[in-house]
Amino acid sequence: MPKIVAIETGFYRIPLPVVLTDSTHGEMRAFELNTIRIRDADGAEGVGYTYTVGRNGAAVDAVLTREIAELFAGEEADEIERLWRKAWWALHYGGRGGPTVLAISAFDMALWDLKAKRADLPLWNFLGAFDPNVPCYAGGIDLDLPLDQLLRQTDDNLAKGFRAIKMKVGRKRLAEDVERVKAMRGHLGDGFPLMADANMKWSVDEAIRAARALLPFDLTWLEEPTEPEDAEGHARIVREGGLPIAAGENLRTVAEFRHYIACGGVTFPEPDVTNCGGVTAFMKIAHLAEAFNLPVTSHGAHDVTVHLLAACPNRSYLEAHGFGLDRYIAEPLRIAEGRAVAPNRPGHGIAFDWKALETIRA
Amino acid sequence: MPKIVAIETGFYRIPLPVVLTDSTHGEMRAFELNTIRIRDADGAEGVGYTYTVGRNGAAVDAVLTREIAELFAGEEADEIERLWRKAWWALHYGGRGGPTVLAISAFDMALWDLKAKRADLPLWNFLGAFDPNVPCYAGGIDLDLPLDQLLRQTDDNLAKGFRAIKMKVGRKRLAEDVERVKAMRGHLGDGFPLMADANMKWSVDEAIRAARALLPFDLTWLEEPTEPEDAEGHARIVREGGLPIAAGENLRTVAEFRHYIACGGVTFPEPDVTNCGGVTAFMKIAHLAEAFNLPVTSHGAHDVTVHLLAACPNRSYLEAHGFGLDRYIAEPLRIAEGRAVAPNRPGHGIAFDWKALETIRA
Repeated sequence: MPKIVAIETGFYRIPLPVVLTDSTHGEMRAFELNTIRIRDADGAEGVGYTYTVGRNGAAVDAVLTREIAELFAGEEADEIERLWRKAWWALHYGGRGGPTVLAISAFDMALWDLKAKRADLPLWNFLGAFDPNVPCYAGGIDLDLPLDQLLRQTDDNLAKGFRAIKMKVGRKRLAEDVERVKAMRGHLGDGFPLMADANMKWSVDEAIRAARALLPFDLTWLEEPTEPEDAEGHARIVREGGLPIAAGENLRTVAEFRHYIACGGVTFPEPDVTNCGGVTAFMKIAHLAEAFNLPVTSHGAHDVTVHLLAACPNRSYLEAHGFGLDRYIAEPLRIAEGRAVAPNRPGHGIAFDWKALETIRA
Repeated sequence: MPKIVAIETGFYRIPLPVVLTDSTHGEMRAFELNTIRIRDADGAEGVGYTYTVGRNGAAVDAVLTREIAELFAGEEADEIERLWRKAWWALHYGGRGGPTVLAISAFDMALWDLKAKRADLPLWNFLGAFDPNVPCYAGGIDLDLPLDQLLRQTDDNLAKGFRAIKMKVGRKRLAEDVERVKAMRGHLGDGFPLMADANMKWSVDEAIRAARALLPFDLTWLEEPTEPEDAEGHARIVREGGLPIAAGENLRTVAEFRHYIACGGVTFPEPDVTNCGGVTAFMKIAHLAEAFNLPVTSHGAHDVTVHLLAACPNRSYLEAHGFGLDRYIAEPLRIAEGRAVAPNRPGHGIAFDWKALETIRA
């Protein structure tokens, strides 16, 4: 059993090449990146990370640096389920949810990376191995783009090899959303997988009206129609709106997903491995979805997530979401003919450029 | 409208005079205290605080120091509802839940303190004024005490003026809990208000069995029988166990309380002003409970909470819970004949001994 002998954390601020906007987060100018490197007694290293859309990375860093590093020095790196529970309960009172879960996610990712590396297996294989070729989509953050620029961005995404695309909705007037989705459907042609993401913009009733108005355009799903606090409201949107609903990037526990799934509030559960509780929680959510005969999709962190979806028989689309991290990774994920391929390097196979990251410490 | 001109934060570690134990948190040797002081353009100051049972205070400090201080410099201190929403959404992606809510709670408390001070009213009066005399109970943290010490602690609490007492349950065997509760009931006599707190120890089915086994001893409530993630499980415990159920110290949003209350999962909602979202959220939860014809009780921070319950017609018991903070407060809350009295000083009236706190910076 490999003992943890060193835990090293990092906190960086990645400026975005282009300011991004959606209906809830306003203007996003930089993402924050938190990393954790775990070295065991044999000198093997696991790497984990999480990110934010610009705030609270300092709190994540505090959890990693002040709590996780102290709690797990000298622990057995192999005993991931036990360590996960130890982290959850040690940090529970001041921690349940929020940045604590982002920190635990990064820690857990590093442990799985280390474990798969020690077995000399790529993570997707280590976790069960369904199919390394994962269909993926381009997640556009484009709410404020004028229509012609939205279509141009779409052509760029087609040229990059994407065969499924997501766009933002939640403009001031629903009629604008309808017009833009209609234009995208016309541009892409019938049958091309198109999703729309409202980033929690609407009330439940507004969301139902929006879903009905968007019904003619054959969306693969409508994402985050309303606030994550309202699972039962999501269930109404699924039942009464008539569109498949994706949700999950703002849920922080397996139990929250269980609640959504059990009450019929989600068609495409969409965990983010960097904020749902790590690889451990992501796989449990994916398997929970499978037990309910639901697909699983994903949010963010495509380099790691491609492994997780490649291990799941119920995997749907991987979200490809470059927030500038690619510049700091040795071999970023490649997309061809709408598919991403889980790499065959041991572990998750992400090699950060630590020297370059040093220049953008937060 | 008073502009915020200065925000000052503090992070302290308060050693406990006696090591405390309960069924979930294990041994607690120190509490962490996070403070925030907000000064407006007229020189008035509002003070807020939150605390943890020993971990994650650094994350709370990071949110207060790195995010809140920057987000709210120059804002109008009076516009609490607007500022609350701004904090929630600015910190949402990396923040929903956990230490973020503890930080927002402290910030919000400081804003209400400032507002009430500017109106020259004590907070309980400012918030609606029901009755400044609030029945309260001693919250014993005593799971590991041998029975004779438990009874001696109980006598101490009676001598201090308490006329209601809560004890811990969740020992290794249910039979031990039954024996201890029976002994306490015998010691206190029929009709004396006695509560029991399981600190999330049991599964739902174990909790139902425990509630039924404890039924003969006329408990005022059974608290936190199982994990906070399971509102529907709590509803089963209420229905099938037959005892009133208190829960809430580990819920972090008004929406979580709504879910518990709407599904019948709680008899005594029990928010903690320092972790439910502050005075703003506490009052909404109290009023939500009233709308459902439920009482509201409280967890922690009795010096502030006495004001909030004194403003609520549906107020039940205040938890009096000294975790060593009294040593750093000018005029700690006094209990007489089972009642605490909300002070008539402006605001919440808590004056920290900042010099003494300086010596225990974390």
